[in-house]
Amino acid sequence: MTAQPLLAEPLDLAAVRTQVTSILDHFLTHKAKEAADLRMPAEVTETLRDFLLAGGKRLRPVLCVTGWHAAGECGDSAPVLRVAASLEMFHAFCLIHDDVMDNSDTRRGHPTVHRTLALRHAGGRSTTAADHLGTGAAILIGDLALAWADELLHTSHLTPAQRTRVLPLIDVMRTEVMYGQYLDLTAAGTLTSDVDRALAVIRYKTAKYTIERPLHLGAALAGADAELLAALSDFALPLGDAFQLRDDILGVYGNPHHTGKTNLDDLREGKDTALIALALQHAPCAQADQLRLFLGNPNLTQDQAEVARRIITATGARSEIEAMITEQFEQALTCLQMIPVEPAAAEVLRHLAETAVRRDT
Amino acid sequence: MTAQPLLAEPLDLAAVRTQVTSILDHFLTHKAKEAADLRMPAEVTETLRDFLLAGGKRLRPVLCVTGWHAAGECGDSAPVLRVAASLEMFHAFCLIHDDVMDNSDTRRGHPTVHRTLALRHAGGRSTTAADHLGTGAAILIGDLALAWADELLHTSHLTPAQRTRVLPLIDVMRTEVMYGQYLDLTAAGTLTSDVDRALAVIRYKTAKYTIERPLHLGAALAGADAELLAALSDFALPLGDAFQLRDDILGVYGNPHHTGKTNLDDLREGKDTALIALALQHAPCAQADQLRLFLGNPNLTQDQAEVARRIITATGARSEIEAMITEQFEQALTCLQMIPVEPAAAEVLRHLAETAVRRDT
Repeated sequence: MTAQPLLAEPLDLAAVRTQVTSILDHFLTHKAKEAADLRMPAEVTETLRDFLLAGGKRLRPVLCVTGWHAAGECGDSAPVLRVAASLEMFHAFCLIHDDVMDNSDTRRGHPTVHRTLALRHAGGRSTTAADHLGTGAAILIGDLALAWADELLHTSHLTPAQRTRVLPLIDVMRTEVMYGQYLDLTAAGTLTSDVDRALAVIRYKTAKYTIERPLHLGAALAGADAELLAALSDFALPLGDAFQLRDDILGVYGNPHHTGKTNLDDLREGKDTALIALALQHAPCAQADQLRLFLGNPNLTQDQAEVARRIITATGARSEIEAMITEQFEQALTCLQMIPVEPAAAEVLRHLAETAVRRDT
Repeated sequence: MTAQPLLAEPLDLAAVRTQVTSILDHFLTHKAKEAADLRMPAEVTETLRDFLLAGGKRLRPVLCVTGWHAAGECGDSAPVLRVAASLEMFHAFCLIHDDVMDNSDTRRGHPTVHRTLALRHAGGRSTTAADHLGTGAAILIGDLALAWADELLHTSHLTPAQRTRVLPLIDVMRTEVMYGQYLDLTAAGTLTSDVDRALAVIRYKTAKYTIERPLHLGAALAGADAELLAALSDFALPLGDAFQLRDDILGVYGNPHHTGKTNLDDLREGKDTALIALALQHAPCAQADQLRLFLGNPNLTQDQAEVARRIITATGARSEIEAMITEQFEQALTCLQMIPVEPAAAEVLRHLAETAVRRDT
């Protein structure tokens, strides 16, 4: 593998993140004013603003703008930035609804939206009623985020040609990620050794949604042809798989001081990852039974979790997943060298690939 | 009030309903094939197809096509029919999510989507786990219906001028109905005598969403100017208010054999309708206390419901709401005579107004 040449004019990813955040901020300020005019509760836009501005790596917007550069564009960036902001708004929708489905209590170090709203409306209600209301309100705020992702898109001032290229990609991306989540959701609580199923979830829920489609969207805005889109897929899909496999390992073995989240949740939830499916496939009967007993137990202790980790490691599943990550990562880098993209964009993609796979957070 | 002239060429609403159903049917057949190609579970499209083809009055599609005719269009109807089908798909999204938020067990005489999916995935799971999974799966199928409403819209072959007129209306309509539902949801369980709040919910959740915006969308597709849109609003808003007030009365007093749904849910849920708010405002203390005890009790018996109905009737709230319905209905008809629309469209609007308000289903 030859290193990409150093950049004369590197893409300023920090600026992309700042600009996207600023578009979201302005949009929500406008929405808050509209809500006040309609005499609607301010908590909707406030909650969404808190959620969107509290953090997030803005990975999809960054990839969208990188895809745009990769296809050779360097003109007026206003439309691509607004499409990128629309992706981030859509992602807020995904996370808010996922947290409801996963019954999660925290996200980005804060209470999840449904927990926040259950607390806000607790007064005079039973816990069950407040929880149910919190869930309903979070579903609606997620729905609004999806509708507003469309509004951002509708106000991106795309040319007719851009719309024709971009809207089908948006439609496909949404269907893919929702199906991926559907597979993931309906697998929960049914621990199997079905590695293929776990890899299909990764492919749709992460590789396509997080990496491939954002790159495609930016590239399509810049007028990329089918050949470039296919070359971007060759890079994006193995990278996306590796990214999620790394996430699965961090979910079980990660250092909470680095990741900012507990390494117990995936085990307690009995998350049906490729790591777990492989471990169940390879474990001798007694250890497989022990694992099934531990996984999905919401009261799993740290000591029990440590036993589970040792069993998973002993089956060879961890090192096998590490080998898959390395293989996929290298395949992505090899494909990257074949893509006829601008060197600055290639450098960004290489850097993103490394941080996505070799991270401990 | 002068009766509208009889029609030389009446709009064929039955044909509109058939065509919209056929578009939805074809779209979902295509989606089912896509799902099979992606090796995704068939239950998503099957569930949505069962829901969409099981019934529904297709009121919004019919109003959309009527709005298009009202503005003088009678050319190629393919785009307006596809936009109309998109409205029906959006409505499926609304109903599926509303049923989750309202904890409803039945819809259109069948189990609701979340109940159906909880049953389907019950095997090997606790009731709590199956219910939670059913809810999550219903949220996702609703999300897909919203995304697919967009896809129908994106594939309607609108001209750039049509898109410019139609998309902002779609965005506004979605925000309005979601805010209306948010107001409704967060009011649940806090029974008040606040009639204004109940009327605001009606205005956003029904009058604008069900009547005004579908008419606007069709008219805008046909190139209607601001004056015609405003005239349509003058007709649509009082009619929409009357339509929902009728619904509120049917929710409490309706005959389940005609309406296809229980007349217990609104009482058990403690739905904060204008009818209930008025009853609480007018009831003597003892009866108001009795009502508050009954309303929102999920285990309310038929006998207790009958007592609640008698109290509400005795306060005069029911006849006051009936008077409001008559007044709003007549205002709508008066405004209808002022709108410069095609006689065939005016006749349809008058007929729709009558069936919307004078129905028992």
